[in-house]
Amino acid sequence: MGEFELIRHYFAAAACARVGGDVLLGIGDDCAVLAVPAGEQLVVSTDTLVAGVHFPDPCDPYLLGQRALAVSTSDLAAMGATPIGFTLALSLPAAEPGWLEGFARGLDAMAARCEMRLIGGDTTRGPLSITVTVFGRVPAGQALLRSGARAGDLLCVGGMLGDAAGALPLVLGERECGTAEAAQLLDRYWSPQPQLAFGQALRGKATSALDISDGLLADCGHIAAASGVQLCIQQQQVPLSEALTELLGPEAALQCGLTGGDDYVLAFTLPADELQGLQAAGWPVQVIGAVEPGEGVRLLDADGNTSVVGKQGYNHFSP
Amino acid sequence: MGEFELIRHYFAAAACARVGGDVLLGIGDDCAVLAVPAGEQLVVSTDTLVAGVHFPDPCDPYLLGQRALAVSTSDLAAMGATPIGFTLALSLPAAEPGWLEGFARGLDAMAARCEMRLIGGDTTRGPLSITVTVFGRVPAGQALLRSGARAGDLLCVGGMLGDAAGALPLVLGERECGTAEAAQLLDRYWSPQPQLAFGQALRGKATSALDISDGLLADCGHIAAASGVQLCIQQQQVPLSEALTELLGPEAALQCGLTGGDDYVLAFTLPADELQGLQAAGWPVQVIGAVEPGEGVRLLDADGNTSVVGKQGYNHFSP
Repeated sequence: MGEFELIRHYFAAAACARVGGDVLLGIGDDCAVLAVPAGEQLVVSTDTLVAGVHFPDPCDPYLLGQRALAVSTSDLAAMGATPIGFTLALSLPAAEPGWLEGFARGLDAMAARCEMRLIGGDTTRGPLSITVTVFGRVPAGQALLRSGARAGDLLCVGGMLGDAAGALPLVLGERECGTAEAAQLLDRYWSPQPQLAFGQALRGKATSALDISDGLLADCGHIAAASGVQLCIQQQQVPLSEALTELLGPEAALQCGLTGGDDYVLAFTLPADELQGLQAAGWPVQVIGAVEPGEGVRLLDADGNTSVVGKQGYNHFSP
Repeated sequence: MGEFELIRHYFAAAACARVGGDVLLGIGDDCAVLAVPAGEQLVVSTDTLVAGVHFPDPCDPYLLGQRALAVSTSDLAAMGATPIGFTLALSLPAAEPGWLEGFARGLDAMAARCEMRLIGGDTTRGPLSITVTVFGRVPAGQALLRSGARAGDLLCVGGMLGDAAGALPLVLGERECGTAEAAQLLDRYWSPQPQLAFGQALRGKATSALDISDGLLADCGHIAAASGVQLCIQQQQVPLSEALTELLGPEAALQCGLTGGDDYVLAFTLPADELQGLQAAGWPVQVIGAVEPGEGVRLLDADGNTSVVGKQGYNHFSP
């Protein structure tokens, strides 16, 4: 089976029309063609996952397909965007039907959940690597940026933190564990749920937003830098799952919640008067701190001691 | 220097504002934000280049930067699109300042020539691999597709074919050659010139178009399949450069012109009454055959002998 048949065969499900009018032309020509409705703007993000760097090799191709799409789609959630579709650039050492079938099924499952459609891509021979570029749309001027946080805003997150980092020893096979807690963490690692509807609900309300991929402290540093403010995090407010605390103990669990990445939960700043409305509507808003004048991030522990936080999180080229 | 500083530092030139209003938000947030003017549509294409598969490793990073962007941007030309910008997903085994500086300069030189702007991306540690996703815009409904060729149309190309394929032994160091002819072929391989203005001029005139990346025969097969027609190529009309014929001899030169890829010259079909106007305007239209009822591609030699052509060209997963 040649390259073109291979792509068509395995990715047919993810490529089939699922979201209607925005995708005018999908796979099969030199480019895909997208319509962006009048009054809306296009948002775009690219992420690469490399075997042995961002995921263990070998791993379950179904889970990898799910995760590869979720990681990028989460950036659309962080902008408050409505998903349109994605391109897939896939490098593979060999075309193994079993692997491709599993990967395509995982990709398709996440595409269906996110109402995304595969609109194009490239398949090449090479070390296993996956680059997904996602496309979404937002009403003009309403994209959630990192740069609008103001002193006096609340600092919030959209769910439990640290589970994906807590799962890493299990993912890497450094630790064997068959408990329900372990299964929960593994699911958070392999199947992150982009908070798309939540991001859309934050449009016009949150003053800044991003999805936590580098870890809470590092990502709060990004908001602080882009907005020219200081973010103060109340350590005891950082939401940690029972499973994480059970499995790792409270101290290591907190460390995962503060510096672990890969949760793809939204972090955002919110004027205090927006809180009640969002909570009443059932959105998972967890207040973990506040925006202050200044710069950087400071962490306040239960005894009121402050640590000033430097640059942290996963930094691919640091020693 | 951390990942973020690295990207900012080396890619600052390619990322700086160059094309004005379409790019509302570039690098630095979760997504880039693009405006698509009312009455226009967005076109998107993704291509991956893998070290040792699509280019020799090591090679000159400046040339690689040029070529990586040109290869993808050529897909915009094939749609008749006006370029907007691109994302870069770069996997590198290590962050070597000299390499990054050269690569970024090459990328920037091609971005300037194509009026493109770097709008986002991802830099990861991994085997050397480059995925570029390009964005352009076309007036609604005017994208040049592969599917509109009609029996009676002329089959045309936009320039010399085979030079890049002829350069391959030189690129791979299998052949040493210091002649002017060799330099010309190497330049065609490393610095293909996306025919953007030409593609735009073909809007509303050409009935189908693509850029030749897999080789003339294979790519004509794509138009034939998408349009439900047969393409007939007059072998002696295939334009070959003197440099190619000089270096390889006429027989091998023709083989490069027919089956070599990587030239990124436009191939298109044209109603006969459009020919004179385009040629008078100075566009490099070369008629090489005609569209006929039927399917697939047939090649007519100087003696009038026909070969029916099967699937050819570079096919990444074929044995």
